[in-house]
Amino acid sequence: MAQATPSLSTLGWTLQDWQSAYREGASPSALLQALQAALQGDDPAWISIASAEQLAEQLLHLQTLLESVAGDTSKLPLYGVPFAAKDNIDAAGWRTTAACPEFAYVASSDAFVVAKLRAAGAILMGKTNLDQFATGLVGTRSPYGAVPNTFDPAYVSGGSSSGSASVVARGLVPFALGTDTAGSGRVPAAFNNIVGLKPTKGWASNSGLVPACRTLDCISVFALTVADAQRAIGLYAGYDAADGYSRQRPAGAPTHFPVKPTLAVPKQLEFFGDALAQQHFHATMGDLKAQGATLVEIDFAPFAQLAELLYYGPWVAERYVAIESMFDRNPDGIDPTVRKVVEQALNYSARDAFEAEYRRAVLARQINDVLAQVDALVVPSTPSIFTMEQLRQEPVKRNSELGTYTNFTNLADLSALALPAGLRSDGLPAGVTLIAPAWHDMALADFGRRWQAAQSLPPGAPGVVDRLPAPIQEKASDEIVVAVVG
Amino acid sequence: MAQATPSLSTLGWTLQDWQSAYREGASPSALLQALQAALQGDDPAWISIASAEQLAEQLLHLQTLLESVAGDTSKLPLYGVPFAAKDNIDAAGWRTTAACPEFAYVASSDAFVVAKLRAAGAILMGKTNLDQFATGLVGTRSPYGAVPNTFDPAYVSGGSSSGSASVVARGLVPFALGTDTAGSGRVPAAFNNIVGLKPTKGWASNSGLVPACRTLDCISVFALTVADAQRAIGLYAGYDAADGYSRQRPAGAPTHFPVKPTLAVPKQLEFFGDALAQQHFHATMGDLKAQGATLVEIDFAPFAQLAELLYYGPWVAERYVAIESMFDRNPDGIDPTVRKVVEQALNYSARDAFEAEYRRAVLARQINDVLAQVDALVVPSTPSIFTMEQLRQEPVKRNSELGTYTNFTNLADLSALALPAGLRSDGLPAGVTLIAPAWHDMALADFGRRWQAAQSLPPGAPGVVDRLPAPIQEKASDEIVVAVVG
Repeated sequence: MAQATPSLSTLGWTLQDWQSAYREGASPSALLQALQAALQGDDPAWISIASAEQLAEQLLHLQTLLESVAGDTSKLPLYGVPFAAKDNIDAAGWRTTAACPEFAYVASSDAFVVAKLRAAGAILMGKTNLDQFATGLVGTRSPYGAVPNTFDPAYVSGGSSSGSASVVARGLVPFALGTDTAGSGRVPAAFNNIVGLKPTKGWASNSGLVPACRTLDCISVFALTVADAQRAIGLYAGYDAADGYSRQRPAGAPTHFPVKPTLAVPKQLEFFGDALAQQHFHATMGDLKAQGATLVEIDFAPFAQLAELLYYGPWVAERYVAIESMFDRNPDGIDPTVRKVVEQALNYSARDAFEAEYRRAVLARQINDVLAQVDALVVPSTPSIFTMEQLRQEPVKRNSELGTYTNFTNLADLSALALPAGLRSDGLPAGVTLIAPAWHDMALADFGRRWQAAQSLPPGAPGVVDRLPAPIQEKASDEIVVAVVG
Repeated sequence: MAQATPSLSTLGWTLQDWQSAYREGASPSALLQALQAALQGDDPAWISIASAEQLAEQLLHLQTLLESVAGDTSKLPLYGVPFAAKDNIDAAGWRTTAACPEFAYVASSDAFVVAKLRAAGAILMGKTNLDQFATGLVGTRSPYGAVPNTFDPAYVSGGSSSGSASVVARGLVPFALGTDTAGSGRVPAAFNNIVGLKPTKGWASNSGLVPACRTLDCISVFALTVADAQRAIGLYAGYDAADGYSRQRPAGAPTHFPVKPTLAVPKQLEFFGDALAQQHFHATMGDLKAQGATLVEIDFAPFAQLAELLYYGPWVAERYVAIESMFDRNPDGIDPTVRKVVEQALNYSARDAFEAEYRRAVLARQINDVLAQVDALVVPSTPSIFTMEQLRQEPVKRNSELGTYTNFTNLADLSALALPAGLRSDGLPAGVTLIAPAWHDMALADFGRRWQAAQSLPPGAPGVVDRLPAPIQEKASDEIVVAVVG
């Protein structure tokens, strides 16, 4: 790995790097204390960093876990692996702020997903910054500061899972949890040259998450490599009877993607005048064809209409319900842009909600019918990238533009994988996203592994990683993923 | 069969009786013209009866169908079989009133389900009365008259599918389509001693149905025998890409029910003071045990809470959306009780709708977790039965009492089968309903066939049928059902 911070030996390590180090005798306390010491309190990607006590406590717990498996680290697939979680996800004893200090509380227990990761041996190094209440795709709507892009600080990081993407892109942790309601797990992946896996709704439990839109929220994962994202979701997902929207993953969920796939591409591509983004996506389509994919143009209208329904429809009422107590108690504690967005909820009646739901069902049906004809839809992860200044000038318009290729996904019950796709001609990163029906997550990951192995640019921020992820030949079934990790 | 109307030879005929008659050379026109002549225009069960022209046209079409299969009637599983449809379901060229003359229109095409039945050779004999806009469980809320109970005209027929239940109970047609949103396909089955099958949501398309609650509506079927209900649903169900809520039936949907099942029974049974209903249900539980069932008491609280959520929650907004144009144009054309119910919609915001949806999800999860432990839930189809006079005095309260054991079903995405269960000690019919998770319809029917064969009272109104349905031994898979019909 590159040593962007020469003092930190673990920079840019993948899960396999961490596991190899431990197998060769490295000590979790040594590696993780060094990591903790290197994390900067004034880094706007973090809202809180594990204190020395919190780290010591987790290391002690790791010791207990290790004893429970008679010292066999292969039974703890994330033994001593550091991770970060977006600060709308609970961790016992940590504050959950959702980027709103006035809303914050100390969580009494771990979110379901955090508990699963910790039970596998993972160590929570910090809670990350976000667009307040996960309302935004920009990474600037937070009293804890705007998170800068890891390629050029004049640009936004993307959001709402801005901090989680940033700490992964800079190689501080091998994976981080985000959330994705309208694209929050994909836009910041694209803007920071990393992988963002938005799992099928309900595969990962939302117990212990501050909701954005409870019927749509998904806990997503960022990693430098698809393989790591896949390993993480395999460990933090799972049925949770306490979450009414949790679902059992079907036994026959696909895990393979054809080597020469048929991919749908929107006939109508919108880049909002960004010629470089357009050029880049056309080049990406060329790469896909060169790798054997057949591209078929499809009518993007139902996707665009569904995307619009999310942003200009009654689902905003879910965001209001989630933070109603803040509106009652302390409306001035809410970020003005977020407040302006969420207050729209008051304009919608139950009739509006049901009419929009009927429209959603029809559009989702059309979309799924289109996707049934292909292996996946391929879209630019974002139509453009904006500077901090552009966001300041038009905070709502720019934000909604960023959701062009993401907003429809959860309303239509789809799985999605945002992948790095090299740099635009101006040196800024640009991503490509593959979208498929529900439960196709692992099939998309199968494609993603091959895609990453064929790239020329290593993932992450400049200089963090100096080699490409190796192509992985074995089957991508859950069992084998876990075995590889262990 | 008994000859309650001696002039009508087809009275009380099952599908098999109709098929046998045709195999033995009977002519559709002779049998159906006689039936048409026997149907009474002043019978409040009908809103419209096939005119001589409408019948002639259908007989002509039947001839064309027969030619298309080279005269092989076995390829037309409903060849010349008469049926009725609730008058909120479209049939090309017929008025659809939804029991509101001011709302009525002439349908330009068949509803999806009607088209499927007609393609199988069935003949539509009439459109039946209902609680206006399918809003009610009573059968009295219609300007076309209250439908009397077929056992005692002082009592209600139950609704909203009052007319369809009545014409089946009286043996006029072997099956009739109803709809079921809150129990409209089960309450009138119980009150008229017939079978009411409420299929899993989305198995039958709702294209061409005047919606009540579009997210909950199911097109149900009434028949004298479970076997006939099963044959009908096998023919009118099926995926429809034009209906956003249509679903594919899973390949592995269960079709068998254990001979010695484990059945859940509510610990808290509510009969609203009706001692005869209570006695009857206890006797029914005795019958179930005698037949080898193990009964286990369960907490009914989540079921009762979900039932309440339907009646006192924002789903009423769906009913408003369905008839918004009537409210705008001609509110006085709406039945006063129905209007009072549906106007409640205006009190609910989008926030209310989402909060109720979250509550629904949690309760539905609890309910499905309970049902996963047993083969089915068994409940009285209704907690009591009311006279026309009782309904006049308390139209809303009595109505909601009738939904005690039905209201939760569609919100929790369940399948249900209402079965005749003999007479109470006062000679009124009482039903029992089996409820199971989605797609367990055919497994419930497997139970229902055995149940009916073990009864002592034949189905239908008094004297309509003089023998019990024969136990049927073959497998209840779709394929075989169709084969049996053909």
